[in-house]
Amino acid sequence: MWQLHQFTLCPFSRKVRLLLNEKDVGYELVPEAPWERRDEFVDLNPDGQTPVMVESARGLVLIDSLAICEYFEETVERSAMLNGAAPQRAEIRRLVAWFDHHFYHDVTAPLLRERMEKRLVHRQPPDAKVLREAMKAAIGHLDYLDWLLDHRTWIGGAALSLADLAAAAHISIADYLGGIDWKGHEGTARWYRGFKSRRSVRPILAERMRGIEPPSHYEDPDF
Amino acid sequence: MWQLHQFTLCPFSRKVRLLLNEKDVGYELVPEAPWERRDEFVDLNPDGQTPVMVESARGLVLIDSLAICEYFEETVERSAMLNGAAPQRAEIRRLVAWFDHHFYHDVTAPLLRERMEKRLVHRQPPDAKVLREAMKAAIGHLDYLDWLLDHRTWIGGAALSLADLAAAAHISIADYLGGIDWKGHEGTARWYRGFKSRRSVRPILAERMRGIEPPSHYEDPDF
Repeated sequence: MWQLHQFTLCPFSRKVRLLLNEKDVGYELVPEAPWERRDEFVDLNPDGQTPVMVESARGLVLIDSLAICEYFEETVERSAMLNGAAPQRAEIRRLVAWFDHHFYHDVTAPLLRERMEKRLVHRQPPDAKVLREAMKAAIGHLDYLDWLLDHRTWIGGAALSLADLAAAAHISIADYLGGIDWKGHEGTARWYRGFKSRRSVRPILAERMRGIEPPSHYEDPDF
Repeated sequence: MWQLHQFTLCPFSRKVRLLLNEKDVGYELVPEAPWERRDEFVDLNPDGQTPVMVESARGLVLIDSLAICEYFEETVERSAMLNGAAPQRAEIRRLVAWFDHHFYHDVTAPLLRERMEKRLVHRQPPDAKVLREAMKAAIGHLDYLDWLLDHRTWIGGAALSLADLAAAAHISIADYLGGIDWKGHEGTARWYRGFKSRRSVRPILAERMRGIEPPSHYEDPDF
């Protein structure tokens, strides 16, 4: 049985879990607070970040969320998430990088720092200016998504793909932390409503990070 | 003919070029200064970053250095750079992410900001403290590489792979900017000396960024 080292609001672990759930791969969660730099965890992954996946029986350790997703895409045929010919696959990977780098840097990371790390680790209030800037950046990203979804059924093209899972991972964490203003983003909201009702997604949205409550619309598929 | 939008000291473009050279894929360089945010370039790539590859005849635009590398790995069989079974490929991708995220964040990015961007864009002197911290971080990363190369012929395993190309891209840019202290890193230095003499690498090391000179050992394969 695979073990997944993660914490509830880690967007990279969430992307991996969405992929595993879509592919019906079983796994067990191991709660990990990477900011505590637990010795055994740093021994496992010298960069100290989640997610890490371990399968002890075969001595396998997988590190880095994209490397993990590519691994399961290569080894589990069911529900392919990197579909199509090479140019289409490049477009899906471009959008995964967009969310994992740009959206994360502009939106998810500052929200996690201000609303999770400062509360749980430093016992400080969030910086209102940083929060405002992250929320403003989220609006820019959602404008771009609206534009993409005017031209496509799913974010990466005609089929559900890893691009949707990456987008939903980051957007759902940002939404949990009160960073998404859905007004004026009807295209993205419609896509996200559809996504929220999937069997792969619902158990993840039901989880809570202790000490941090999401807004009331967070789990509602018809918000 | 593929066109590659890049600038001389972009580590992500350099990784792509090393792959293209190893695979004997022809391309033409288009000099791009992403910090100028040229309108036509932002139209091509809304995130405004290099590298971007364009093949006008087929209407192809590839964005994000890893998506580009995966594309050429999938479409050009020669000189495979993601070798082996799925766990081995995951290990290569883990190390590519290590260099593209951690080494970049700790070493390449601060060196580029202090020694390139401040000189060319802001006309400011570099911050000595930031430079010292980047050089100290580089020592930590090279310690880890030494350890890996004690156990393996190449960084990702028994064969040359994309992990070596990513490592060499970042290390050579950091070396150009005077950020690498080679003393005490004999394992990594031996690997890098071998790498520098490759036909795929030499023309890249012969290039100069206008206004910024590398140290005298930079291009020397026997430093």
